[in-house]
Amino acid sequence: MTTNTSLQKAPARNGVNVEALLGARAALTESPEGARFTWRATSEWIKGTHSRSTIHGFFGLGGEQAHRQKFQFDTDHPEVFAAEDNGATPVEVVLVGLAGCLSAGIAAVAQNRNIQLRSVKATLEAGMDLQGILGIDDNVRNGFNGIKVRYEIDADATQEEIAALVAQSQKRSAVFDIVTNPTDVTVTVRKA
Amino acid sequence: MTTNTSLQKAPARNGVNVEALLGARAALTESPEGARFTWRATSEWIKGTHSRSTIHGFFGLGGEQAHRQKFQFDTDHPEVFAAEDNGATPVEVVLVGLAGCLSAGIAAVAQNRNIQLRSVKATLEAGMDLQGILGIDDNVRNGFNGIKVRYEIDADATQEEIAALVAQSQKRSAVFDIVTNPTDVTVTVRKA
Repeated sequence: MTTNTSLQKAPARNGVNVEALLGARAALTESPEGARFTWRATSEWIKGTHSRSTIHGFFGLGGEQAHRQKFQFDTDHPEVFAAEDNGATPVEVVLVGLAGCLSAGIAAVAQNRNIQLRSVKATLEAGMDLQGILGIDDNVRNGFNGIKVRYEIDADATQEEIAALVAQSQKRSAVFDIVTNPTDVTVTVRKA
Repeated sequence: MTTNTSLQKAPARNGVNVEALLGARAALTESPEGARFTWRATSEWIKGTHSRSTIHGFFGLGGEQAHRQKFQFDTDHPEVFAAEDNGATPVEVVLVGLAGCLSAGIAAVAQNRNIQLRSVKATLEAGMDLQGILGIDDNVRNGFNGIKVRYEIDADATQEEIAALVAQSQKRSAVFDIVTNPTDVTVTVRKA
């Protein structure tokens, strides 16, 4: 004996408040000035190639906002660069941002499509030829020559539905855009 | 009574082993295959938009390398995105990478030019219009519409020398390159 209820999926519980996000989209469509955000970081040099960055306040929804707490990150160069390895290398931190952004998007899209996620694991690899940053060969770029992201996702969905989640996340990911497209950076300096 | 010694600057002590870096440059000029690095991150979804990334091993100098310890980073969305704010927002993490890379470069170049740094502080601001990631307006990009980096540097040098340090660091910065120029990202997915 089968009943209709066996055909109904339980609502997905991925921990993303999709109703609030859809509400925000509707509100910001009406008041686009609220959508203008400014993200910030401050950074202080410690010693050698070691720095500490702090994330706390940002601007958005028309006013000053703040994280619940300060987040601090140490960056340094590894010992094979004759440094002290007091933190992740700055290029590795970029990979962290990319992974975090894509995975957050996957969770949000899954929730919106009522797909229950069980695990989302990403492995990122980025090639870099040091001949760039060491100034050995001007034809070699300083940054990554490419990034490979491999997702392994356990979810209540088919391979095709899972692939579509990742594709949609990529389409709307801020960090994916920052890495794959050029962003203007202006640097100014003042002697203290 | 003045002596010649008063005209000689004490060697700068910024904590960067420039001799080792120049030695590495010479060695990698001879053996460019050693300059091919692969940086890695792994990431695991926790709940909602919260993920945890781990940095540990990387490939370079022809073999597997590892940091002295694992570095872990939590990323999440802020409460104004109806999330739990268990970590910095992924886009903010990109700013951390940019600050860490430029500041490490400033210290290395200062050491090479025998300029004593006393403090190096950076403030980064990046604009982002949420109409992009929310899919309100397809003409608005998902990522930053620009980044402003302000350095305030106390050093045993003129304003011009300090500005030149920052300019040289920018010229050889991996993360500056990654942000300002396009990088190819390939994403693959497997159902677990």
